[in-house]
Amino acid sequence: MTNITLTTYDWVPELPRGYVRDLRIRWALEEAGMSYNVASTPFRQREAEHLAHQPFAQVPWLTDGDLSIFETGAILLHLGAQSHRLMPGDPAGRAKVTEWLFAALNSVEAASLPWSILSFSKPEAGIPEALVGFLSARLSRMEAVLSSGDWLAGPFSVADIAMADVLRLVGRLGGLGDYPTCQAYVARATARPAFIKAHADQMAHFAAADHR
Amino acid sequence: MTNITLTTYDWVPELPRGYVRDLRIRWALEEAGMSYNVASTPFRQREAEHLAHQPFAQVPWLTDGDLSIFETGAILLHLGAQSHRLMPGDPAGRAKVTEWLFAALNSVEAASLPWSILSFSKPEAGIPEALVGFLSARLSRMEAVLSSGDWLAGPFSVADIAMADVLRLVGRLGGLGDYPTCQAYVARATARPAFIKAHADQMAHFAAADHR
Repeated sequence: MTNITLTTYDWVPELPRGYVRDLRIRWALEEAGMSYNVASTPFRQREAEHLAHQPFAQVPWLTDGDLSIFETGAILLHLGAQSHRLMPGDPAGRAKVTEWLFAALNSVEAASLPWSILSFSKPEAGIPEALVGFLSARLSRMEAVLSSGDWLAGPFSVADIAMADVLRLVGRLGGLGDYPTCQAYVARATARPAFIKAHADQMAHFAAADHR
Repeated sequence: MTNITLTTYDWVPELPRGYVRDLRIRWALEEAGMSYNVASTPFRQREAEHLAHQPFAQVPWLTDGDLSIFETGAILLHLGAQSHRLMPGDPAGRAKVTEWLFAALNSVEAASLPWSILSFSKPEAGIPEALVGFLSARLSRMEAVLSSGDWLAGPFSVADIAMADVLRLVGRLGGLGDYPTCQAYVARATARPAFIKAHADQMAHFAAADHR
């Protein structure tokens, strides 16, 4: 029996499947070999109960006993503290994972998310130059960083789950053409059995809803 | 004597003064009453030594004894673990601060930063509708969240430092007009003596460089 429940949408359209953020948490749980339940919240009606767990009406959230946590970064840190397969136990190792986790979300995804949103929504005027430059500055630095080792903070960690998932979406949208080292990193991360299982499980979860 | 050194640029142009991210760290250090040194790295030449501490060639970074940490989120968590004025010591309290810290950076700033960049760079076609909608969705939710208490996670915490600083820049650019509760939150946060000192110290740091 497990105390951990991960909540995601009951259904999403085809486009975001395989990219909904519960994937990051499934991936971490699989890496750690922790058992967990998956629960659903309606995609179409996001009501008070949903907002009580996730105030931006997004997913996922995780409950662990009495604790309910939202934000994938916070959930990854919470799980990291429970498994050395996700984060080392020593202060210096923890600090390195923590800074790279924030870097994935606040330095790289802060630049990739607006670019991704506009790559999907295709504004008539194209993607503003300032945002293209913002992303390429970050990717150029990641290209250099990733040339010095397989993973960001020594052994594979929750920082790699976040960073690889952020870069994976950029790659899907054709944004990694000039960044072969970033591409290789995404390929390396997504070849891990825990990613493959997490991804298949998310796809199956949403596909099951189509048949209800 | 202190082991803590905060590094920021030696100089920046007028426009970003008062908004460079070392402010978030100064603010936390002042709230906690911790002593610290401030060091400078060249704004115009960002070299190997800079990249060794901050791989995106940004500021700030913090050294604490042998540890060197970048990303304001990671630094705020590191300091939070050292002072109950910044983060409670119990697991539930820590989890709440951590999720709201990530929310400030990955849910709200992820939406406000592209909007802010375009508000400054003023692309001819205006700010794409998808990004305007992204920010207003987040601000609407923050307006509801902030109506239920002075601070995000019970007592004032590092989560409020991050969130108030994120919203402060939106306000500076005229983006909080429809969000009076967010405005009041920024006013409440920036009236704190620790913010006032941190802000004055950053302004003085960059002004001193003008006279060299």
